[in-house]
Amino acid sequence: MASSGKMSFPQLVVRLPDWLEDFLSGPVGARNPDRIYPTPEDRMRLVIELSRLNVEHETGGPFGAAVFDAAGRLVAPGVNLVTSANSSILHAEMVAIALAQQALGRFDIGLGGTRPHELVASTEPCAMCFGAVPWSGVTRLVCGARGEDACAIGFDEGPKLPDWWRALEDRGIAVARDVLRDEAAQVLRWYSSKGGVIYNSGVRRG
Amino acid sequence: MASSGKMSFPQLVVRLPDWLEDFLSGPVGARNPDRIYPTPEDRMRLVIELSRLNVEHETGGPFGAAVFDAAGRLVAPGVNLVTSANSSILHAEMVAIALAQQALGRFDIGLGGTRPHELVASTEPCAMCFGAVPWSGVTRLVCGARGEDACAIGFDEGPKLPDWWRALEDRGIAVARDVLRDEAAQVLRWYSSKGGVIYNSGVRRG
Repeated sequence: MASSGKMSFPQLVVRLPDWLEDFLSGPVGARNPDRIYPTPEDRMRLVIELSRLNVEHETGGPFGAAVFDAAGRLVAPGVNLVTSANSSILHAEMVAIALAQQALGRFDIGLGGTRPHELVASTEPCAMCFGAVPWSGVTRLVCGARGEDACAIGFDEGPKLPDWWRALEDRGIAVARDVLRDEAAQVLRWYSSKGGVIYNSGVRRG
Repeated sequence: MASSGKMSFPQLVVRLPDWLEDFLSGPVGARNPDRIYPTPEDRMRLVIELSRLNVEHETGGPFGAAVFDAAGRLVAPGVNLVTSANSSILHAEMVAIALAQQALGRFDIGLGGTRPHELVASTEPCAMCFGAVPWSGVTRLVCGARGEDACAIGFDEGPKLPDWWRALEDRGIAVARDVLRDEAAQVLRWYSSKGGVIYNSGVRRG
């Protein structure tokens, strides 16, 4: 605690791990602006691979996400960085949303719905990420594993509306669930079997 | 779009505006590690002032927040930076949580409830910030203006549980509402009267 001079509060830098930049620049070619991921399954396959690599590189929980434009081009990826960045807000969806907005230079990814964009998440959003979706401006949410698949290995979804997907659809955001659910859930189970940290914060109960 | 060499996705740097650092280092003395804010009203008064200054300096919406430790010392402040940072996730509460975690060097501010900390917000949390509270590790939430006060000037709370405060209390997080509500709501009305941007993103409806 310095007692003289102007002190600054620390910053939080939201940045992708080096391995992720390397992976996307490599044979997968996702950093190539011409690369198209035509189907929801193609896009989900990339996101599940990010979740798997995030476990392998021990940079966070077993969760991946990405924002794609209407043509199926990758705008920005995200992985869970809670433990490596000491930040409970850095779930994969939040990272993908934040970096997509920086890439596009606007806080409303879909420009009032006129530029459709999709958020693809390897697991259904927790209460926080669910609440972040309408503010992000994405027009479609695609989910792999279910929230209950994450709960099955000890993660907590938080206090969510029971019909959360309907609440998004009521706001004009389309929701697709169970896209490659088994492949996505397999990464969760693998993380659990290798003793990955279940990093829920908060007041301990029971 | 460079076609050769390794490209990087942009980063998002979450940092406080210069005016805020200057303000806290000045006569208010909140940057003094010995300064104590003894009562919830003292803490709320600081947070409301942050919301007002954020409007005055045009760095974002009319919202302030801060994390305090059990003694009433400021751990980290936050203001809404959505428009100035082009980031829909940077609500005041999210900024305060993120910077408090960087200041403390841990993602669980309250260390499983053993180190009580309070999040003070000039307006009740939206759906996203509500969902972020349990993950942050704070043990108490103190709110000024009501969500309906923000809605009255055109902001959107998002799809929240109707009894959101009970959902937090069920998780061991105490909630105090209506602390200096009128003073907090006055900043919202002032922002609206001077034509401040209501920056809701997402699909336009109706």
